[in-house]
Amino acid sequence: MSGFVSFVSSGPGDPELLTVKAVKRLEAADAVLFDDLSAGPILSHARADADLVGVGKRAGRPSPKQDHVSQLLVDYAQSGLHVVRLKSGDSGVFGRLEEEITALRKAGIPFEIVPGVTAASAAAAAANIPLTRRLTARRLQFITGHDVTGGLPDQLNLAALADPDATTVVYMGKRTFASLAEKLLEAGLPPQTHALVALGVSTPEQSLHCHTVGELPTVLRKMETTAPVLILYGPLADQDLPHG
Amino acid sequence: MSGFVSFVSSGPGDPELLTVKAVKRLEAADAVLFDDLSAGPILSHARADADLVGVGKRAGRPSPKQDHVSQLLVDYAQSGLHVVRLKSGDSGVFGRLEEEITALRKAGIPFEIVPGVTAASAAAAAANIPLTRRLTARRLQFITGHDVTGGLPDQLNLAALADPDATTVVYMGKRTFASLAEKLLEAGLPPQTHALVALGVSTPEQSLHCHTVGELPTVLRKMETTAPVLILYGPLADQDLPHG
Repeated sequence: MSGFVSFVSSGPGDPELLTVKAVKRLEAADAVLFDDLSAGPILSHARADADLVGVGKRAGRPSPKQDHVSQLLVDYAQSGLHVVRLKSGDSGVFGRLEEEITALRKAGIPFEIVPGVTAASAAAAAANIPLTRRLTARRLQFITGHDVTGGLPDQLNLAALADPDATTVVYMGKRTFASLAEKLLEAGLPPQTHALVALGVSTPEQSLHCHTVGELPTVLRKMETTAPVLILYGPLADQDLPHG
Repeated sequence: MSGFVSFVSSGPGDPELLTVKAVKRLEAADAVLFDDLSAGPILSHARADADLVGVGKRAGRPSPKQDHVSQLLVDYAQSGLHVVRLKSGDSGVFGRLEEEITALRKAGIPFEIVPGVTAASAAAAAANIPLTRRLTARRLQFITGHDVTGGLPDQLNLAALADPDATTVVYMGKRTFASLAEKLLEAGLPPQTHALVALGVSTPEQSLHCHTVGELPTVLRKMETTAPVLILYGPLADQDLPHG
């Protein structure tokens, strides 16, 4: 008897930013494996008798190893269950989805992916700005602030990242942005480029702060938060942004 | 008496990929201004007595001018209504959101943005692949295949777009991809780079086709479709993709 895994994107945190399909999958699940970031009210959609298993990884805290999570997913599915693997944001964007998919394929377990709202979309919406602009921001790019070692990824494409005509979104970049900013400015990005820091997007703790790329390293060093941090920089519509 | 505008992202087409918040806004709206691409079953969430106004732009068909749409939005809101401006995908991504926001600000009309699932996330989910990969695709970028004139945007950042270590998603690129591909190959992108063409993502007409960047211009020339076309290229997990 083979189980089935639904990778369900939970969106940035606000339970109302779940998709209708995500709610349906949660309601039907025998077991839900969730990350810390997507917990709370979102899990209330699960059945009262569903197994709820926290497998979260969160910066700065000890967390289960990725292969342990993948193995747990395989084990639950192999017991014949319909498993929801809940992932924050859109599961395909910096969600370590590949490792878990690979484990399921090896074990011959069928799966589906339910896409969701990525944090960048929610941050821009919260700031009342578009991510792309017709004349000034026609390219949009996402990077992560840390690789598997926790440091800034090497082999950064600075011609791409220091482009003043793109909107760039850095996921999980709080700890490493200072060293990224140094490289960006060296590569020619103007230090006065607008930068938006979004904390806990779409959650009750949400706060938005508008600065410049040049100021941001100092701002981030002083910022104490356990909320997820998203950094957007580029030709943002500055007159519309919350300052300070 | 001042109205209010909710920019509501309708997602890529599947009504189940609406967010819970989008459904609520549709249910509460006095008037819904919608694009062709987001019509159909999604509109069934609107009240029976709501005004439904089609203002869609679609490639190759005559369509209302952008300022006409913005003016219509202002007019509806100024009559004191709660207006939903429904936009396909995520409204902040190539949704011409800036022009409409500017018009509302000028008229002093309050608004909110409800983020949604962008087509890139839905296309990758449909193909069972992640958009980012830990070691090989750590940067994700979105561009549009046509600017306001309908042609390929000039001033393309080819160092960014010909990067074999990024996943690139081209929105609305069917007509111009041949000329983009020529530039990409000249800039050093290997012609055998995997490319996924996704038509009508998440709709009943959805089809996925896996090729290479080198082959794609010929494939696209022969492809007859009125569905929205999304092109993804880069280090996609090729063994997982539907071929042909």
